[in-house]
Amino acid sequence: MQSYPSKLLEHAVNELARLPGIGRKTALRMALHLLKRNPAEVESLGTAIIKMRNDLIYCRECRNISDQDLCTICESPKRDHSLICVVEDIRDVMAIENTGQFSGVYHVLGGIISPMEGIGPQDLHIEGLIQRVASGNIGEIILALPTTIEGDTTNFYLFRKLAEFNLRLTTIARGVSIGDELEHTDEVTLGRSILNRTPYESGLARK
Amino acid sequence: MQSYPSKLLEHAVNELARLPGIGRKTALRMALHLLKRNPAEVESLGTAIIKMRNDLIYCRECRNISDQDLCTICESPKRDHSLICVVEDIRDVMAIENTGQFSGVYHVLGGIISPMEGIGPQDLHIEGLIQRVASGNIGEIILALPTTIEGDTTNFYLFRKLAEFNLRLTTIARGVSIGDELEHTDEVTLGRSILNRTPYESGLARK
Repeated sequence: MQSYPSKLLEHAVNELARLPGIGRKTALRMALHLLKRNPAEVESLGTAIIKMRNDLIYCRECRNISDQDLCTICESPKRDHSLICVVEDIRDVMAIENTGQFSGVYHVLGGIISPMEGIGPQDLHIEGLIQRVASGNIGEIILALPTTIEGDTTNFYLFRKLAEFNLRLTTIARGVSIGDELEHTDEVTLGRSILNRTPYESGLARK
Repeated sequence: MQSYPSKLLEHAVNELARLPGIGRKTALRMALHLLKRNPAEVESLGTAIIKMRNDLIYCRECRNISDQDLCTICESPKRDHSLICVVEDIRDVMAIENTGQFSGVYHVLGGIISPMEGIGPQDLHIEGLIQRVASGNIGEIILALPTTIEGDTTNFYLFRKLAEFNLRLTTIARGVSIGDELEHTDEVTLGRSILNRTPYESGLARK
Protein backbone atom coordinates (compact mmCIF):
# COMPACT_ATOMS: atom_id res chain seq x y z
CA MET A 1 0.00 0.00 0.00
CA GLN A 2 1.41 3.30 -1.15
CA SER A 3 1.78 5.90 1.58
CA TYR A 4 1.41 9.55 0.68
CA PRO A 5 3.22 12.46 2.33
CA SER A 6 -0.02 14.42 2.46
CA LYS A 7 -3.66 13.57 3.08
CA LEU A 8 -4.68 16.27 0.60
CA LEU A 9 -2.56 14.64 -2.09
CA GLU A 10 -3.81 11.16 -1.22
CA HIS A 11 -7.43 12.30 -1.38
CA ALA A 12 -6.91 13.96 -4.77
CA VAL A 13 -5.17 10.83 -6.13
CA ASN A 14 -8.01 8.63 -4.87
CA GLU A 15 -10.55 10.83 -6.60
CA LEU A 16 -8.62 11.04 -9.88
CA ALA A 17 -8.09 7.25 -9.89
CA ARG A 18 -11.87 6.79 -10.11
CA LEU A 19 -11.91 8.28 -13.59
CA PRO A 20 -12.26 5.61 -16.33
CA GLY A 21 -8.94 4.14 -17.48
CA ILE A 22 -6.92 6.00 -14.85
CA GLY A 23 -4.81 3.90 -12.47
CA ARG A 24 -3.18 5.11 -9.26
CA LYS A 25 0.20 5.85 -10.88
CA THR A 26 -1.37 7.94 -13.60
CA ALA A 27 -3.54 9.67 -11.00
CA LEU A 28 -0.43 10.55 -8.97
CA ARG A 29 1.29 11.90 -12.08
CA MET A 30 -1.79 14.02 -12.76
CA ALA A 31 -1.92 15.32 -9.20
CA LEU A 32 1.78 16.30 -9.23
CA HIS A 33 1.23 17.97 -12.61
CA LEU A 34 -1.68 19.96 -11.13
CA LEU A 35 0.54 21.07 -8.25
CA LYS A 36 2.88 22.68 -10.79
CA ARG A 37 0.07 24.55 -12.52
CA ASN A 38 -1.07 27.85 -11.08
CA PRO A 39 -3.99 27.74 -8.63
CA ALA A 40 -6.37 29.62 -10.95
CA GLU A 41 -5.98 26.94 -13.64
CA VAL A 42 -6.65 24.12 -11.20
CA GLU A 43 -9.68 26.00 -9.88
CA SER A 44 -10.87 26.36 -13.47
CA LEU A 45 -10.68 22.59 -14.04
CA GLY A 46 -12.36 21.77 -10.73
CA THR A 47 -15.24 24.19 -11.20
CA ALA A 48 -15.68 23.23 -14.89
CA ILE A 49 -16.50 19.61 -14.07
CA ILE A 50 -18.68 20.51 -11.07
CA LYS A 51 -20.59 23.12 -13.07
CA MET A 52 -21.01 20.72 -15.99
CA ARG A 53 -22.43 18.01 -13.72
CA ASN A 54 -24.77 20.38 -11.88
CA ASP A 55 -25.99 22.66 -14.66
CA LEU A 56 -25.98 20.50 -17.77
CA ILE A 57 -29.41 19.24 -18.73
CA TYR A 58 -30.86 16.85 -21.28
CA CYS A 59 -33.05 18.00 -24.12
CA ARG A 60 -36.67 17.17 -23.20
CA GLU A 61 -37.32 16.10 -26.80
CA CYS A 62 -34.35 13.96 -27.86
CA ARG A 63 -32.40 13.46 -24.56
CA ASN A 64 -29.27 14.88 -26.14
CA ILE A 65 -27.01 16.86 -23.80
CA SER A 66 -27.98 20.50 -23.81
CA ASP A 67 -27.55 23.81 -22.05
CA GLN A 68 -31.28 24.51 -22.37
CA ASP A 69 -34.61 22.73 -22.11
CA LEU A 70 -34.57 22.10 -25.87
CA CYS A 71 -31.23 21.34 -27.60
CA THR A 72 -29.93 23.43 -30.51
CA ILE A 73 -30.76 20.65 -32.97
CA CYS A 74 -34.35 20.15 -31.79
CA GLU A 75 -35.08 23.88 -31.74
CA SER A 76 -33.58 24.53 -35.18
CA PRO A 77 -36.18 25.29 -37.90
CA LYS A 78 -33.62 24.23 -40.52
CA ARG A 79 -33.71 20.57 -39.45
CA ASP A 80 -36.16 18.01 -40.79
CA HIS A 81 -38.24 17.16 -37.72
CA SER A 82 -40.04 14.30 -39.47
CA LEU A 83 -36.77 12.31 -39.67
CA ILE A 84 -35.41 10.85 -36.42
CA CYS A 85 -32.05 9.09 -36.07
CA VAL A 86 -31.97 6.77 -33.03
CA VAL A 87 -28.53 6.44 -31.38
CA GLU A 88 -27.04 4.87 -28.27
CA ASP A 89 -25.37 7.91 -26.72
CA ILE A 90 -24.39 11.50 -27.35
CA ARG A 91 -20.98 10.60 -28.81
CA ASP A 92 -22.88 9.10 -31.74
CA VAL A 93 -24.77 12.38 -32.18
CA MET A 94 -21.45 14.25 -32.27
CA ALA A 95 -19.97 11.77 -34.77
CA ILE A 96 -22.94 12.01 -37.13
CA GLU A 97 -23.13 15.82 -36.81
CA ASN A 98 -19.46 15.92 -37.79
CA THR A 99 -20.24 14.33 -41.14
CA GLY A 100 -22.55 17.20 -42.05
CA GLN A 101 -24.69 14.66 -43.96
CA PHE A 102 -27.72 14.45 -41.70
CA SER A 103 -30.42 17.10 -41.67
CA GLY A 104 -32.94 15.37 -39.41
CA VAL A 105 -33.17 15.22 -35.63
CA TYR A 106 -32.02 12.62 -33.09
CA HIS A 107 -33.25 10.44 -30.29
CA VAL A 108 -30.64 9.37 -27.72
CA LEU A 109 -31.55 6.12 -25.97
CA GLY A 110 -28.86 6.49 -23.29
CA GLY A 111 -27.70 2.88 -23.79
CA ILE A 112 -28.87 -0.34 -25.44
CA ILE A 113 -30.74 -3.36 -24.15
CA SER A 114 -28.23 -5.67 -22.44
CA PRO A 115 -29.49 -8.50 -20.21
CA MET A 116 -25.85 -9.26 -19.27
CA GLU A 117 -25.47 -5.81 -17.73
CA GLY A 118 -29.01 -5.74 -16.43
CA ILE A 119 -30.13 -2.99 -18.79
CA GLY A 120 -33.72 -3.44 -19.93
CA PRO A 121 -35.99 -1.32 -22.13
CA GLN A 122 -37.32 0.49 -19.07
CA ASP A 123 -33.80 1.85 -18.37
CA LEU A 124 -33.63 3.54 -21.77
CA HIS A 125 -35.40 6.59 -23.20
CA ILE A 126 -37.69 4.45 -25.35
CA GLU A 127 -41.01 5.71 -23.99
CA GLY A 128 -40.10 9.25 -25.07
CA LEU A 129 -39.43 8.00 -28.60
CA ILE A 130 -42.81 6.26 -28.77
CA GLN A 131 -44.47 9.50 -27.62
CA ARG A 132 -42.69 11.52 -30.29
CA VAL A 133 -43.87 9.06 -32.92
CA ALA A 134 -47.39 8.89 -31.49
CA SER A 135 -47.69 12.67 -31.69
CA GLY A 136 -47.60 12.25 -35.50
CA ASN A 137 -45.54 14.03 -38.15
CA ILE A 138 -42.73 11.47 -38.10
CA GLY A 139 -42.07 10.03 -41.56
CA GLU A 140 -38.92 7.96 -41.01
CA ILE A 141 -36.83 6.55 -38.21
CA ILE A 142 -33.20 5.58 -38.86
CA LEU A 143 -31.78 3.06 -36.40
CA ALA A 144 -28.05 3.77 -35.95
CA LEU A 145 -27.26 1.34 -33.14
CA PRO A 146 -24.13 -0.87 -32.84
CA THR A 147 -23.90 -4.11 -34.86
CA THR A 148 -23.76 -6.30 -31.76
CA ILE A 149 -26.20 -8.76 -30.24
CA GLU A 150 -27.30 -5.97 -27.88
CA GLY A 151 -27.72 -3.56 -30.80
CA ASP A 152 -29.73 -6.13 -32.77
CA THR A 153 -31.90 -6.87 -29.72
CA THR A 154 -32.62 -3.19 -29.27
CA ASN A 155 -33.36 -2.78 -33.00
CA PHE A 156 -35.85 -5.64 -32.84
CA TYR A 157 -37.50 -4.31 -29.69
CA LEU A 158 -37.95 -0.89 -31.33
CA PHE A 159 -39.19 -2.52 -34.55
CA ARG A 160 -41.97 -4.24 -32.65
CA LYS A 161 -42.85 -1.16 -30.63
CA LEU A 162 -43.00 1.02 -33.74
CA ALA A 163 -44.74 -1.51 -36.03
CA GLU A 164 -48.20 -0.09 -35.36
CA PHE A 165 -47.24 3.34 -36.67
CA ASN A 166 -47.23 4.32 -40.31
CA LEU A 167 -43.59 5.22 -40.90
CA ARG A 168 -40.44 4.11 -42.69
CA LEU A 169 -38.00 2.24 -40.47
CA THR A 170 -34.41 2.04 -41.75
CA THR A 171 -30.92 1.25 -40.47
CA ILE A 172 -27.71 2.97 -41.52
CA ALA A 173 -25.86 1.19 -44.35
CA ARG A 174 -23.24 -1.34 -43.34
CA GLY A 175 -20.52 -1.96 -45.85
CA VAL A 176 -16.90 -1.64 -46.79
CA SER A 177 -15.41 1.62 -45.51
CA ILE A 178 -14.44 4.11 -48.19
CA GLY A 179 -10.71 3.68 -48.82
CA ASP A 180 -10.62 0.13 -47.36
CA GLU A 181 -9.47 -2.77 -49.48
CA LEU A 182 -11.82 -5.72 -49.94
CA GLU A 183 -9.21 -8.28 -48.90
CA HIS A 184 -8.86 -6.59 -45.50
CA THR A 185 -12.56 -6.31 -44.81
CA ASP A 186 -14.09 -8.83 -42.40
CA GLU A 187 -16.34 -11.47 -43.96
CA VAL A 188 -19.54 -10.35 -42.27
CA THR A 189 -19.16 -6.76 -43.47
CA LEU A 190 -18.17 -7.83 -46.96
CA GLY A 191 -21.06 -10.29 -47.17
CA ARG A 192 -23.49 -7.62 -46.01
CA SER A 193 -22.14 -5.16 -48.56
CA ILE A 194 -22.93 -7.60 -51.35
CA LEU A 195 -26.43 -8.40 -50.11
CA ASN A 196 -27.21 -4.71 -49.62
CA ARG A 197 -25.67 -3.53 -52.88
CA THR A 198 -26.93 -0.20 -54.14
CA PRO A 199 -27.64 0.97 -57.72
CA TYR A 200 -24.59 2.35 -59.46
CA GLU A 201 -24.66 6.13 -59.83
CA SER A 202 -21.72 7.25 -61.89
CA GLY A 203 -19.74 10.01 -60.26
CA LEU A 204 -22.49 10.90 -57.77
CA ALA A 205 -21.69 8.40 -55.04
CA ARG A 206 -18.47 9.98 -53.99
CA LYS A 207 -19.44 13.60 -54.61
CA MET B 1 -13.26 20.79 -35.45
CA GLN B 2 -15.51 18.80 -33.19
CA SER B 3 -18.74 20.59 -32.26
CA TYR B 4 -20.24 19.95 -28.83
CA PRO B 5 -23.94 19.98 -28.01
CA SER B 6 -23.25 22.01 -24.87
CA LYS B 7 -20.87 24.81 -23.92
CA LEU B 8 -20.60 23.37 -20.40
CA LEU B 9 -19.51 20.02 -21.81
CA GLU B 10 -17.08 21.64 -24.23
CA HIS B 11 -15.50 23.70 -21.46
CA ALA B 12 -15.09 20.64 -19.21
CA VAL B 13 -13.56 18.63 -22.08
CA ASN B 14 -11.13 21.48 -22.83
CA GLU B 15 -10.04 21.57 -19.19
CA LEU B 16 -9.68 17.78 -18.86
CA ALA B 17 -7.67 17.64 -22.12
CA ARG B 18 -5.00 19.80 -20.47
CA LEU B 19 -4.12 16.98 -18.08
CA PRO B 20 -0.89 15.18 -19.04
CA GLY B 21 -1.42 12.31 -21.47
CA ILE B 22 -5.12 13.06 -21.96
CA GLY B 23 -6.30 13.74 -25.52
CA ARG B 24 -9.65 15.21 -26.50
CA LYS B 25 -11.29 11.82 -27.09
CA THR B 26 -10.28 10.55 -23.66
CA ALA B 27 -11.35 13.86 -22.11
CA LEU B 28 -14.79 13.49 -23.70
CA ARG B 29 -15.06 9.93 -22.39
CA MET B 30 -14.14 11.19 -18.91
CA ALA B 31 -16.69 14.01 -19.10
CA LEU B 32 -19.50 11.66 -20.16
CA HIS B 33 -18.48 9.29 -17.38
CA LEU B 34 -18.69 12.15 -14.86
CA LEU B 35 -22.18 13.00 -16.12
CA LYS B 36 -23.29 9.51 -15.14
CA ARG B 37 -21.86 9.77 -11.63
CA ASN B 38 -23.93 11.45 -8.95
CA PRO B 39 -23.33 15.19 -8.42
CA ALA B 40 -21.85 14.73 -4.93
CA GLU B 41 -19.09 12.50 -6.31
CA VAL B 42 -18.18 14.95 -9.05
CA GLU B 43 -18.17 17.77 -6.51
CA SER B 44 -15.86 15.67 -4.36
CA LEU B 45 -13.37 15.27 -7.24
CA GLY B 46 -13.52 18.93 -8.18
CA THR B 47 -13.02 20.22 -4.67
CA ALA B 48 -10.31 17.62 -3.90
CA ILE B 49 -8.00 18.92 -6.64
CA ILE B 50 -8.74 22.58 -5.88
CA LYS B 51 -8.17 22.07 -2.16
CA MET B 52 -4.98 20.13 -2.81
CA ARG B 53 -3.58 22.88 -5.01
CA ASN B 54 -4.54 25.67 -2.60
CA ASP B 55 -3.82 24.12 0.77
CA LEU B 56 -0.92 21.76 0.19
CA ILE B 57 2.40 23.16 1.35
CA TYR B 58 6.02 22.13 1.17
CA CYS B 59 8.02 21.13 4.24
CA ARG B 60 10.29 24.04 5.17
CA GLU B 61 13.09 21.62 5.99
CA CYS B 62 13.15 19.09 3.15
CA ARG B 63 10.72 20.58 0.56
CA ASN B 64 8.68 17.39 0.55
CA ILE B 65 4.95 17.80 0.01
CA SER B 66 3.25 18.21 3.35
CA ASP B 67 0.05 19.21 5.07
CA GLN B 68 1.98 21.18 7.68
CA ASP B 69 4.98 23.47 7.98
CA LEU B 70 7.16 20.46 8.81
CA CYS B 71 6.46 17.12 7.07
CA THR B 72 5.74 13.95 9.03
CA ILE B 73 9.19 12.57 8.22
CA CYS B 74 11.11 15.67 9.31
CA GLU B 75 9.15 16.00 12.54
CA SER B 76 9.49 12.33 13.47
CA PRO B 77 11.87 11.67 16.40
CA LYS B 78 12.26 8.09 15.14
CA ARG B 79 14.12 9.16 12.01
CA ASP B 80 17.88 9.66 11.84
CA HIS B 81 18.20 13.40 11.22
CA SER B 82 21.95 13.16 10.60
CA LEU B 83 21.32 11.14 7.41
CA ILE B 84 19.88 12.98 4.42
CA CYS B 85 18.79 11.33 1.18
CA VAL B 86 18.76 13.79 -1.73
CA VAL B 87 16.11 13.10 -4.40
CA GLU B 88 14.73 14.76 -7.52
CA ASP B 89 11.04 14.90 -6.64
CA ILE B 90 8.46 13.68 -4.18
CA ARG B 91 7.64 10.55 -6.15
CA ASP B 92 11.14 9.36 -5.27
CA VAL B 93 10.44 10.00 -1.57
CA MET B 94 7.29 7.91 -1.86
CA ALA B 95 9.15 5.12 -3.68
CA ILE B 96 11.93 4.96 -1.07
CA GLU B 97 9.49 5.18 1.84
CA ASN B 98 7.67 2.22 0.33
CA THR B 99 10.77 0.03 0.67
CA GLY B 100 10.82 0.56 4.46
CA GLN B 101 14.65 0.44 4.24
CA PHE B 102 15.48 4.06 4.95
CA SER B 103 15.40 5.58 8.43
CA GLY B 104 16.95 8.96 7.64
CA VAL B 105 15.36 12.13 6.29
CA TYR B 106 15.10 13.56 2.78
CA HIS B 107 15.90 16.61 0.76
CA VAL B 108 13.79 17.16 -2.36
CA LEU B 109 15.60 19.22 -5.01
CA GLY B 110 12.48 19.77 -7.08
CA GLY B 111 14.32 18.79 -10.27
CA ILE B 112 17.88 18.23 -11.51
CA ILE B 113 20.35 20.47 -13.33
CA SER B 114 19.48 20.40 -17.03
CA PRO B 115 21.02 22.98 -19.37
CA MET B 116 18.84 21.59 -22.18
CA GLU B 117 15.68 22.52 -20.29
CA GLY B 118 17.21 25.68 -18.85
CA ILE B 119 17.22 24.36 -15.29
CA GLY B 120 20.22 25.62 -13.33
CA PRO B 121 21.28 25.12 -9.69
CA GLN B 122 19.49 28.34 -8.72
CA ASP B 123 16.16 26.77 -9.81
CA LEU B 124 16.55 23.87 -7.38
CA HIS B 125 16.34 23.68 -3.57
CA ILE B 126 20.10 23.39 -3.23
CA GLU B 127 20.68 26.43 -1.00
CA GLY B 128 18.39 24.92 1.62
CA LEU B 129 20.41 21.70 1.56
CA ILE B 130 23.68 23.62 2.08
CA GLN B 131 22.09 25.46 5.01
CA ARG B 132 20.97 22.19 6.59
CA VAL B 133 24.51 20.83 6.27
CA ALA B 134 26.09 24.08 7.50
CA SER B 135 23.93 23.98 10.62
CA GLY B 136 25.95 20.90 11.62
CA ASN B 137 24.82 17.49 12.87
CA ILE B 138 24.72 15.96 9.37
CA GLY B 139 26.89 12.83 9.18
CA GLU B 140 26.03 11.51 5.74
CA ILE B 141 24.32 12.53 2.55
CA ILE B 142 23.04 9.90 0.14
CA LEU B 143 22.61 11.09 -3.45
CA ALA B 144 19.66 9.24 -4.99
CA LEU B 145 19.37 11.08 -8.29
CA PRO B 146 18.69 9.52 -11.70
CA THR B 147 21.55 7.77 -13.55
CA THR B 148 21.49 10.23 -16.41
CA ILE B 149 23.86 12.94 -17.59
CA GLU B 150 21.66 15.46 -15.76
CA GLY B 151 21.75 13.34 -12.62
CA ASP B 152 25.52 13.00 -12.80
CA THR B 153 25.89 16.73 -13.39
CA THR B 154 23.77 17.44 -10.33
CA ASN B 155 25.71 14.87 -8.27
CA PHE B 156 28.98 16.52 -9.25
CA TYR B 157 27.65 20.00 -8.50
CA LEU B 158 26.52 18.89 -5.04
CA PHE B 159 29.83 17.05 -4.47
CA ARG B 160 31.75 20.30 -5.00
CA LYS B 161 29.33 22.36 -2.93
CA LEU B 162 29.49 19.89 -0.04
CA ALA B 163 33.24 19.13 -0.25
CA GLU B 164 34.14 21.69 2.42
CA PHE B 165 31.96 19.98 5.03
CA ASN B 166 33.07 17.02 7.09
CA LEU B 167 30.57 14.38 6.04
CA ARG B 168 30.21 11.12 4.20
CA LEU B 169 28.87 11.54 0.68
CA THR B 170 27.39 8.41 -0.89
CA THR B 171 25.25 7.41 -3.82
CA ILE B 172 22.69 4.65 -3.89
CA ALA B 173 24.08 1.37 -5.21
CA ARG B 174 23.90 0.76 -8.93
CA GLY B 175 21.43 -2.01 -8.30
CA VAL B 176 18.94 0.25 -9.97
CA SER B 177 19.17 -0.42 -13.71
CA ILE B 178 20.72 2.49 -15.56
CA GLY B 179 17.98 4.32 -17.37
CA ASP B 180 15.19 3.10 -15.08
CA GLU B 181 13.25 5.54 -12.94
CA LEU B 182 13.11 5.07 -9.17
CA GLU B 183 9.35 4.97 -9.05
CA HIS B 184 9.25 2.03 -11.46
CA THR B 185 11.91 -0.03 -9.68
CA ASP B 186 10.76 -3.02 -7.66
CA GLU B 187 10.95 -2.56 -3.89
CA VAL B 188 13.59 -5.22 -3.24
CA THR B 189 16.06 -3.74 -5.71
CA LEU B 190 15.39 -0.22 -4.53
CA GLY B 191 15.74 -1.23 -0.87
CA ARG B 192 19.00 -3.07 -1.58
CA SER B 193 20.36 0.00 -3.35
CA ILE B 194 19.87 2.00 -0.16
CA LEU B 195 21.54 -0.62 2.07
CA ASN B 196 24.50 -1.02 -0.34
CA ARG B 197 25.15 2.63 -0.97
CA THR B 198 28.75 3.35 -2.04
CA PRO B 199 31.14 6.29 -1.44
CA TYR B 200 30.87 8.99 -4.07
CA GLU B 201 33.84 9.11 -6.47
CA SER B 202 33.64 11.92 -8.96
CA GLY B 203 33.86 10.80 -12.56
CA LEU B 204 34.34 7.16 -11.66
CA ALA B 205 30.78 6.43 -10.79
CA ARG B 206 29.61 5.77 -14.33
CA LYS B 207 32.38 3.38 -15.44
